Amino acid sequence: MKMSGLKIKKQLLEQEKVSYAMDHIELPEGGIDCSEGCNPYGFPPECVEVLRGFDPARLGPYPHSQAMYEAIHEFWADQINVERDNILLTEGSMSALYIVNNIFDTHNAVVLGISPQFTDYYMHAEMIGIRYAPYQLERSQNYKFDIDSFIKMHYQEAGSSETGKPVMDTSYNFIYIDNPNNPTGQCIGIRDIEKIVAEAERYNITVIIDEAYGDFMPKENSAVQLFAGYPNLAVVRTMSKGYGLAGMRVGYIIAHKNLISYMNKMTNPYMVGELSREVAAAAVRCTGFVEQCREDFRTMKAEIRRVLGCTEEDPSGTSGNLHIAETLDTNSICLLYHDRPEINLKDEFFRRGVLVIDGYDFKGLDSSAARVRLPKLADFQVLLQAIKEINCM
Amino acid sequence: MKMSGLKIKKQLLEQEKVSYAMDHIELPEGGIDCSEGCNPYGFPPECVEVLRGFDPARLGPYPHSQAMYEAIHEFWADQINVERDNILLTEGSMSALYIVNNIFDTHNAVVLGISPQFTDYYMHAEMIGIRYAPYQLERSQNYKFDIDSFIKMHYQEAGSSETGKPVMDTSYNFIYIDNPNNPTGQCIGIRDIEKIVAEAERYNITVIIDEAYGDFMPKENSAVQLFAGYPNLAVVRTMSKGYGLAGMRVGYIIAHKNLISYMNKMTNPYMVGELSREVAAAAVRCTGFVEQCREDFRTMKAEIRRVLGCTEEDPSGTSGNLHIAETLDTNSICLLYHDRPEINLKDEFFRRGVLVIDGYDFKGLDSSAARVRLPKLADFQVLLQAIKEINCM
Repeated sequence: MKMSGLKIKKQLLEQEKVSYAMDHIELPEGGIDCSEGCNPYGFPPECVEVLRGFDPARLGPYPHSQAMYEAIHEFWADQINVERDNILLTEGSMSALYIVNNIFDTHNAVVLGISPQFTDYYMHAEMIGIRYAPYQLERSQNYKFDIDSFIKMHYQEAGSSETGKPVMDTSYNFIYIDNPNNPTGQCIGIRDIEKIVAEAERYNITVIIDEAYGDFMPKENSAVQLFAGYPNLAVVRTMSKGYGLAGMRVGYIIAHKNLISYMNKMTNPYMVGELSREVAAAAVRCTGFVEQCREDFRTMKAEIRRVLGCTEEDPSGTSGNLHIAETLDTNSICLLYHDRPEINLKDEFFRRGVLVIDGYDFKGLDSSAARVRLPKLADFQVLLQAIKEINCM
Repeated sequence: MKMSGLKIKKQLLEQEKVSYAMDHIELPEGGIDCSEGCNPYGFPPECVEVLRGFDPARLGPYPHSQAMYEAIHEFWADQINVERDNILLTEGSMSALYIVNNIFDTHNAVVLGISPQFTDYYMHAEMIGIRYAPYQLERSQNYKFDIDSFIKMHYQEAGSSETGKPVMDTSYNFIYIDNPNNPTGQCIGIRDIEKIVAEAERYNITVIIDEAYGDFMPKENSAVQLFAGYPNLAVVRTMSKGYGLAGMRVGYIIAHKNLISYMNKMTNPYMVGELSREVAAAAVRCTGFVEQCREDFRTMKAEIRRVLGCTEEDPSGTSGNLHIAETLDTNSICLLYHDRPEINLKDEFFRRGVLVIDGYDFKGLDSSAARVRLPKLADFQVLLQAIKEINCM
């Protein structure tokens, strides 16, 4: 059968897709799952009551529940006023990223990212014809983001570049930053984020801050508090990580109402089902749940640092060949990497009963690295034992 | 604040969106809803058992249920073999249409449609930069689709057009047909659909058949049975109409695995939540439910025809000024139109306790027409009385 004649985007015909999103998971026998970014502690128990009390008849009509809009408004009320027309509900944060990518003129478009970062984001950008130009985090710097070199590299003043023109003006159409970063789990401070957004605004560049793991950092560090002052900012959130509702597919975008209005033109008000809206709204109101998760992750990361011999001089670890990249202690994910390039870290963990994400699935990394999403504290010893063994390899 | 400087698609900046998809519904006091395309009979009662028996813990991990893929396979097994890689699950059929539109190279792209048809489809196409060029259904023909004039207009042989070149080769990139048609509810026979798809294949044109209302026509008339033979065909289905699960947001695309693979590159395997997959799978297995709905709609449409004085010579109605466009009797929707152009049909229905969709919300129609989605038989007299009165205006 002929297919190539169909007028399909050439990227879709030519480019292979890399992604760690899986149709099904195969755990090592008797092992534990440290792969997908869902919350090992599940979701706030209050969600079960909402599920049980939900009137099934509401599955019939199109979704009209405003509960999630109200819950989002309340959640951010201590930081900033988020109105109905600042919110777009989306099917998890992945659908949010597709929508955001699609509002831009893709002709000659380039997005500035930070590598490694969420693979499915830049894959989608490339598939729809946007060139992905990442700022590279370096292993020699323990993958730590440095705001000064980022700004210096990407925001030259008019007249300061060789051509005498501002570098950003023609080169980047928008910027994508996941904060906290995926896979390292590290967090960029809100003042640094504001620097980037403010500089970008001068060049008419939109900034997308993907806070998929945002519930694992302090709320005060969210870029949501900036949106009212920056019409070039879109913040993406999800209920899949901190609130543990990955199976329900609920996320949202917060932005200036003009940006949201463009997204509305390409979507519809029925996104996110009626029950999902109600359950997610109940979850948003249970902030104590996420706080407890953060404490447990902090405990586990301290143990990992201890085992790896992390010091102030060398926070990546000094006790063996395994290292932990810069990371936020309260975040569920971290990046481990091995000194021996021939080691396949995912395979080594798998042999020891732990399923992780292969570093190869992230741009700028290889299989000597792996993303580990922490398990429940009760399962942690399996992971810790594997780390100990692999550290000595 | 400056916004226009951001590198947004120019259509999003300039074009107004028309849509009848509503964030919230306001019914006339004590009146009935004949607006949105959901099923007035709700969904198969078996769905409630699945909802009640669902293990809440499954909301935590990303969706991995294969139940819907299996149910789709079984559903079509008496027509054609639909494998896992022929299926893409989507959040209702609207998200499916966004994905399908996005696989095409949009540079100078033109989509051939049939007007009036589903507004949100062509709006999305236009918003992402695809030109919409519809074949117009005529009021003088009671909005009936005519395959011969459609083929003649759009599929001229090489050498037969004025320039001596095949018309389709450069003019259309793909074709979008909703079958049954929305708003008229009419149904194009499968042999005519195959003619269109076969001719299109010769010119490398992809055909999208949107069967959102497909469960209201005989299964044998679905284009799904053609997909294995035509790599240029994508069929879109939804659980929102016939199966009445609009609140759950479940739809799917069936196509040749190559076409599906392009769509997979722009999406992710987590689309449609875990519970939605399970409930929808249970619904697909309850074919008796839709059959009963069809019979009730047939009864109601016969009554409407009787009141409007429809005859074989004039099937639009002869008893007054209100007419019913060509429609499939077992379908839940129909298009009514009035002889007096100054009449606002939606307003007239609203005054009489019936909420309908304004014809203005469809390209090629105006407010002297309205789409009516039939209510439950128990509520039908309210609608019928309104029709009687408006017919005499």
